[in-house]
Amino acid sequence: MKGFFDERQWNHDPKHFMANGVASPNPEQPRRIEVLKGAAEEAGCVFTTPPDAGLGPIAAIHTAEYLTFLRNIYTRWSRMDGAGAEVIPNIHPANRTDSYPKSAVGQAGYHQADTACPIAEGTWEAAYWSAQSAIAGADFVAAGDGPAYALSRPPGHHAFADLAGGFCFFNNSGIAAERLRAQGFRPAILDVDVHHGNGTQGIFYHREDVLTVSIHADPARFYPFFWGHAHERGEGAGLGYNLNLPLERGTGDDDYMRTLDRALARVTDFGCDALVVALGLDASIDDPFQGLAVTQEGFARIGRAMKQTGLPVLFVQEGGYISDTLGANLRQVLDGFQSG
Amino acid sequence: MKGFFDERQWNHDPKHFMANGVASPNPEQPRRIEVLKGAAEEAGCVFTTPPDAGLGPIAAIHTAEYLTFLRNIYTRWSRMDGAGAEVIPNIHPANRTDSYPKSAVGQAGYHQADTACPIAEGTWEAAYWSAQSAIAGADFVAAGDGPAYALSRPPGHHAFADLAGGFCFFNNSGIAAERLRAQGFRPAILDVDVHHGNGTQGIFYHREDVLTVSIHADPARFYPFFWGHAHERGEGAGLGYNLNLPLERGTGDDDYMRTLDRALARVTDFGCDALVVALGLDASIDDPFQGLAVTQEGFARIGRAMKQTGLPVLFVQEGGYISDTLGANLRQVLDGFQSG
Repeated sequence: MKGFFDERQWNHDPKHFMANGVASPNPEQPRRIEVLKGAAEEAGCVFTTPPDAGLGPIAAIHTAEYLTFLRNIYTRWSRMDGAGAEVIPNIHPANRTDSYPKSAVGQAGYHQADTACPIAEGTWEAAYWSAQSAIAGADFVAAGDGPAYALSRPPGHHAFADLAGGFCFFNNSGIAAERLRAQGFRPAILDVDVHHGNGTQGIFYHREDVLTVSIHADPARFYPFFWGHAHERGEGAGLGYNLNLPLERGTGDDDYMRTLDRALARVTDFGCDALVVALGLDASIDDPFQGLAVTQEGFARIGRAMKQTGLPVLFVQEGGYISDTLGANLRQVLDGFQSG
Repeated sequence: MKGFFDERQWNHDPKHFMANGVASPNPEQPRRIEVLKGAAEEAGCVFTTPPDAGLGPIAAIHTAEYLTFLRNIYTRWSRMDGAGAEVIPNIHPANRTDSYPKSAVGQAGYHQADTACPIAEGTWEAAYWSAQSAIAGADFVAAGDGPAYALSRPPGHHAFADLAGGFCFFNNSGIAAERLRAQGFRPAILDVDVHHGNGTQGIFYHREDVLTVSIHADPARFYPFFWGHAHERGEGAGLGYNLNLPLERGTGDDDYMRTLDRALARVTDFGCDALVVALGLDASIDDPFQGLAVTQEGFARIGRAMKQTGLPVLFVQEGGYISDTLGANLRQVLDGFQSG
């Protein structure tokens, strides 16, 4: 399988993270890259550096003010007296319609939904090339050259059009899907990350030309809390084009696969002709977030099920954190897909 | 002048605070009480403990789910494995219409706009009695017994109907104004805190029966950033019934007084018959937040201007932080009012 990755994606190395009112190390470590890349290569992936498709495909999803913010905020933040080493928000608007301030602290709160997406010197560059890896993957799939795996790290599915969150800055899966749509496809995004793909949902919530489906731990008691509930089905023209399939904490392989069948049935009904898999690996029974309990064999079954759709498939890396089986889980998906 | 305060308001002692990505001690210290109470007493204020008017007047302003949250969250939080000592949010919804989660962490993010309003064991009780002090003040003024000063601490004007923020939990000024309105008055809230009264604005934004006016440092580069801009004039029936008068950083007495004249002219035009002054003292040239530059003489002029309206006046304490002149500034307002 073809793989895409750029070395500049190493340049984001976040430190700050807070959960339950306590600070702890940020789990979205650059070291994930070597684990994931090694596993993909073991599964036969051959990596290429993506070409630079420019800001156009990113700006097709994200707002101009958000792009300006993300590009400049670290420099502006660094000039503040007594500023911390990373851009971390401390106040947030109540609604997207609240006024947009000029200050760095205010804009940080406007554009960062949580404290899990600190921004430092290399963040823009890493996020930019993470998106370029997804764009290159979309172009590869669109050309009919076979399936592809984009090692998009930092991940993307928690990023809205104008809002970072949950380790994510650019919505790589959404950018890839829009890239496919612009080339005449009718794409679906199937998100198997243990966390709901809230940014992806938000981006396409009013649209009927890109289907969004997410399988995840029930957000009533799991990040991202405010999104991913079954009643969120889309709005306006998009009504019915968003499908959330929340699962109880600790759900294992068999129940997971039954849910995946429902998801894939919706993808088929939609008339999808190119599938973007938002490939989180944190549904693993070994993942530190402990949301679901998918085994290595379960990941192989997920890969096989994707293959059996018969669709052109682009895998875009999302979450999945350091554990003894992180690499093995990716290898199982890709091996399962290739043997499916 | 009559004063209202309850000793249980000491029971909130917040620790966590973050600005510019750096943690520092929370400025809204209980010690503010002794400084403010002593100064008010020097100005002739005689304090009484407020009677318990119950939750009704508070629930007239705040939502049921917010009241439930505020009352129970510390207990629920304390039961979480590895929870921090205070309830501090780490993820926030993008809009008030996003789904409402069950988890304590999720609800904290839904109901706390920032990291400046940590909740601990005594927070509910302190906020409850802070609101009761304001309610008792409103009843005193409504009875025609003269002006009153409610030493409402923790403060209130950053609290929305369902959202704490900026040291605030219950919107004491808003609760007092609604209490007056329910007794047949046509109240205005004039907020002279250096920070925009965003919660108060939000609560009354669609209403024409309570006028909200705020004079504050320009939020383009000052907390609360997303609210307090001049173009925010109210919506629907409330259009024209919210007036924001942002001032440049460092504005001194003369320009401040000219702006106060505009504010009071609007209060008069509204047909106000009972004035709630949201009395922050942090417009002081000595305040640690350094937003505006009102001198002690300026505070005396503010007090005199309030008196010259001829209206029944309730002063509700808002912000103003420990400095060499915090007490003196309060005394100047009250002395100025009584001599005006």
